[in-house]
Amino acid sequence: MRITDIIEKKIKKQELTKQEIEYFVTGYTNGEIKEYQVAALLMAIFLNGMNHQETTNLTIAMANSGKILDLSTLGEIIVDKHSTGGVGDKVSLILLPLVSSLGVPVAKMSGRGLGFTGGTVDKLESIPGYQTQIEINQFIKNVEKIGISMISQTLDLAPADKKLYALRDSISCVESIPLIASSIMSKKIASGAQKIVLDVTVGKGAFMKDIEQATQLSKTMIEIGKLANRQTICIITNMNEPLGYAIGNSLEVIEAVKFLKGDMPQDLKQVVLELGSYMLKLAKKGEDIEKNKIRLLENLENKKAYHKFLELVENQGGDIRYLTDLKKMPKASYIEPIYSKKNGYIQQIDSKKIGELVGILGAKREKKEDSIDAKVGIVLNQKVTNQVKIGDVLAYIHANDEEKLKEVKIKLEEEIKISEQKLEKEKTILGVITK
Amino acid sequence: MRITDIIEKKIKKQELTKQEIEYFVTGYTNGEIKEYQVAALLMAIFLNGMNHQETTNLTIAMANSGKILDLSTLGEIIVDKHSTGGVGDKVSLILLPLVSSLGVPVAKMSGRGLGFTGGTVDKLESIPGYQTQIEINQFIKNVEKIGISMISQTLDLAPADKKLYALRDSISCVESIPLIASSIMSKKIASGAQKIVLDVTVGKGAFMKDIEQATQLSKTMIEIGKLANRQTICIITNMNEPLGYAIGNSLEVIEAVKFLKGDMPQDLKQVVLELGSYMLKLAKKGEDIEKNKIRLLENLENKKAYHKFLELVENQGGDIRYLTDLKKMPKASYIEPIYSKKNGYIQQIDSKKIGELVGILGAKREKKEDSIDAKVGIVLNQKVTNQVKIGDVLAYIHANDEEKLKEVKIKLEEEIKISEQKLEKEKTILGVITK
Repeated sequence: MRITDIIEKKIKKQELTKQEIEYFVTGYTNGEIKEYQVAALLMAIFLNGMNHQETTNLTIAMANSGKILDLSTLGEIIVDKHSTGGVGDKVSLILLPLVSSLGVPVAKMSGRGLGFTGGTVDKLESIPGYQTQIEINQFIKNVEKIGISMISQTLDLAPADKKLYALRDSISCVESIPLIASSIMSKKIASGAQKIVLDVTVGKGAFMKDIEQATQLSKTMIEIGKLANRQTICIITNMNEPLGYAIGNSLEVIEAVKFLKGDMPQDLKQVVLELGSYMLKLAKKGEDIEKNKIRLLENLENKKAYHKFLELVENQGGDIRYLTDLKKMPKASYIEPIYSKKNGYIQQIDSKKIGELVGILGAKREKKEDSIDAKVGIVLNQKVTNQVKIGDVLAYIHANDEEKLKEVKIKLEEEIKISEQKLEKEKTILGVITK
Repeated sequence: MRITDIIEKKIKKQELTKQEIEYFVTGYTNGEIKEYQVAALLMAIFLNGMNHQETTNLTIAMANSGKILDLSTLGEIIVDKHSTGGVGDKVSLILLPLVSSLGVPVAKMSGRGLGFTGGTVDKLESIPGYQTQIEINQFIKNVEKIGISMISQTLDLAPADKKLYALRDSISCVESIPLIASSIMSKKIASGAQKIVLDVTVGKGAFMKDIEQATQLSKTMIEIGKLANRQTICIITNMNEPLGYAIGNSLEVIEAVKFLKGDMPQDLKQVVLELGSYMLKLAKKGEDIEKNKIRLLENLENKKAYHKFLELVENQGGDIRYLTDLKKMPKASYIEPIYSKKNGYIQQIDSKKIGELVGILGAKREKKEDSIDAKVGIVLNQKVTNQVKIGDVLAYIHANDEEKLKEVKIKLEEEIKISEQKLEKEKTILGVITK
């Protein structure tokens, strides 16, 4: 087999065989195939596409490039949840303790944030004492003990995906449906998931810019799931404005805890219930989606989910006193409101722009090695369509640096757009794709 | 400027600016831009194309990546001739002394053969004593003295083209009209040509497989010529069967000398006269193509072209006794005929296959470093459409190795296809493109 022949096939839009895909993934991972040849092949795939069978073969080859986590000792059906990334997305912090409180085992490995999107691990680490880096044995023991563990991806899962992703990033080939789909699914398969619920975000603060794209990505991942024997369901959610009100690591933890205590922003609630009810369904804990939602709401109202979260934090070494009394959570030095200068209706709060502003404050990293400031961020005081008057608080900026505060203040005032006309609220749940 | 943005533009089929093209060519040549990023960009160019302005900018950027030969001291208009490659193509050996004998200065740098196509330098070096590697000063002095010099490309002309060509080869991106056109034209511009006549070969033994492709390539090169102020004319010629009868380095020199002495195969004669008359026209030595052909024929018949060739060889240190008495030319150990086993008409002599057989005999190199055997090759005894009877000689194999002789004999017998039906002769000159 020769890489030049494989490239040529893809130039001619021919289907690559399983063997050809394995050859290039293995060869690239072990350094036998040159980076520039893989770059050329990725570009040909990017421009000429791959069908579902090729995409599945790529997914499996990448999953097999490293260890595959064996969660079979956990006995029950392992359902994983993943989001394609968003701004203010603290869904995992709420949803996973919630489904765990209903008997679904949760063995969750998460990533750190990169660029304008946040990462669950960064958020968890803003809780004093919370250990995200623990041994796999301990991780599994934790799940066995209390039904849930959430840690950072310590194992070298799907190293080929990591290498290919970095290469794609350096050659402007990130936004390709088959490449995004196989990247996500390879990590899910490698991390031991048997069933998968995917939150496919769409809009300004998401990789997918419209519903068509999101639907195509969803169908591709569902198809991979079918071919790889991992039942997959995709919920398409709106990411035009940030989810909930808080953006920033410890600020999102605070919002999540408040949510678990009963203070639920509408959009966040809808996403949690939608994803949760499909997780219950896949875990064979209930066929009826609407009934599942009622059961999820029950466990929010009776605080079982909240107590499961405290149990999780405590079990991971975290100090739950910060959560039971949220005022104790470390705060940024400056907390400054910005006010409306107009009467009207909130027209737009561009997630991506907000994510970038939070980045300027120090909450996001550009490179994996960068350290982040857990305390900074933005807490919105409004959602799109809200009516506001001159002088109403639009948002609070949490900053540790006066210069950055000043910069973000000016920009945030510009970013929260106000219209004279009353607007119609966009839907939060844009679609559920099961096949 | 960032290479990822440039790649993204080409992904989106946007036009790259002159500055962007210079940025990537310069950055790649000096090693500042990663090879994998250039590979990805080349693939995007390969699949999404470039317009004439982009192709010209690429051409000029590549020409400017190294020295540009200054031939202005030669005073008159420098017309260069180039072929896109063929089998049995000894046109330069005949044509250049011929136009020189009519007062057109010839300062020609040629390449070596690679793959199944021959190279003029290899052919010249099969003449005992002929020096192809001389200093540029001496090269120019030779042209000043006798009106012609033919040497190998010793200067580092268009190094970016060399680097990009090697990369294209390793990522299956060779056959792209804008990339081929800019590669050819960058070398022509760097080697000092002011006007250019291009022999665009088409058919089995050529890079261009059909007339449409060849026409597109021609028009692209002519357009580059216009934008780069280098008037260019393309002659599209048939390369389905080898040109003339001889294939192999010294065998082609013998055929060229015989031609100059008056023994002119029909197809070779047509190509020489067509290219030659346009060279005269571009050199302002005659507007009328048909009259130019008559003048070229005159200088063949009165042997002025032959004597110019001898003068060239002598001036480059070659021993002309081998040419004035062709029997002296070094011969291969085995010269073996193959015979027709059928009555009929020669239907096909696939140039590429013949080129490959000559390669097996040792006349071609796979890598630039390989040495070659100047004496081996094939001399056809028939052209396509010839009538043959059982026992007629179809060709002679010149070999220095018994095993290889055996192998080539079997294969050559298969490659010279004989039909029962009389066939129509294909045209040799398939088109002349001047704008």
